[in-house]
Amino acid sequence: MEMLFRYNWQVRQEWFDWCESLSQQELLQQRTGGVGSILYTLYHIIDVEYSWINDLRDQNSLLTDFADYQTVERLRALSSQLHVEVGAYVKAWTPEQETKILHNVRKDGSTEQLTYGEVMRHVIAHEIHHVGQLSVWAREVGREPVSANLIRRGLQR
Amino acid sequence: MEMLFRYNWQVRQEWFDWCESLSQQELLQQRTGGVGSILYTLYHIIDVEYSWINDLRDQNSLLTDFADYQTVERLRALSSQLHVEVGAYVKAWTPEQETKILHNVRKDGSTEQLTYGEVMRHVIAHEIHHVGQLSVWAREVGREPVSANLIRRGLQR
Repeated sequence: MEMLFRYNWQVRQEWFDWCESLSQQELLQQRTGGVGSILYTLYHIIDVEYSWINDLRDQNSLLTDFADYQTVERLRALSSQLHVEVGAYVKAWTPEQETKILHNVRKDGSTEQLTYGEVMRHVIAHEIHHVGQLSVWAREVGREPVSANLIRRGLQR
Repeated sequence: MEMLFRYNWQVRQEWFDWCESLSQQELLQQRTGGVGSILYTLYHIIDVEYSWINDLRDQNSLLTDFADYQTVERLRALSSQLHVEVGAYVKAWTPEQETKILHNVRKDGSTEQLTYGEVMRHVIAHEIHHVGQLSVWAREVGREPVSANLIRRGLQR
């Protein structure tokens, strides 16, 4: 489980680096598909990961607003700040938590039962999916995207 | 491990269904980013999954050519055919295989050592990443993409 999170965190840092060569206008430009702009996608990834992990930890999430994080520098800092809690939770994960039940309140007020195991994998897949979208937009602006390979990253331990 | 594979296989079937409402021209049109067209992306996902699993099984892969699979129907059949072996391998996976070493021969002839665990996750991430690209192209052709959610798919067992 942890390896896929570490993959996402490493790839995310590389996308932050990648973003530094783009103008603010390119980073915030509304694009087709996904959640809109490149920077908003990265914000959304950070926000969704943190929110789900806090649901699993039974903690309230610090409320953030994208308006406060519209530069690569601020987003990177937000990611690092929230990673203290997220990283600790993922590191402490044990297989016994797999089948634990989360009573999740949906936007319409209804409640659903999810297993902790599926929520963790949902978070993993969520980030990889949105990064796939970034890779298309990268080509649209004429740049080579960050590699999506999981192998050859020293993640094998 | 298995849950993320089952997620990919379920999402893949939904993309096949989704493709059926598009014209052949739209499915084969070269697009920006990724590996090109929508159909070639699905072929590539199937091919890469099968090739890596066969490397892990120490089996040679049946050689296929995209030229023979340029319809949704043929691709779906290829996916089902190869899934017999892929699915059996994933189902039989045990945590003891995690650290087993694959001596992988790269395109340049050099050899690298990969763990079986990282190859399995590489395959998982590979499909999710390319599906993220499909989701952008879906919006480009004015269609709603297949949901990328892992929750609410009955995968929690």
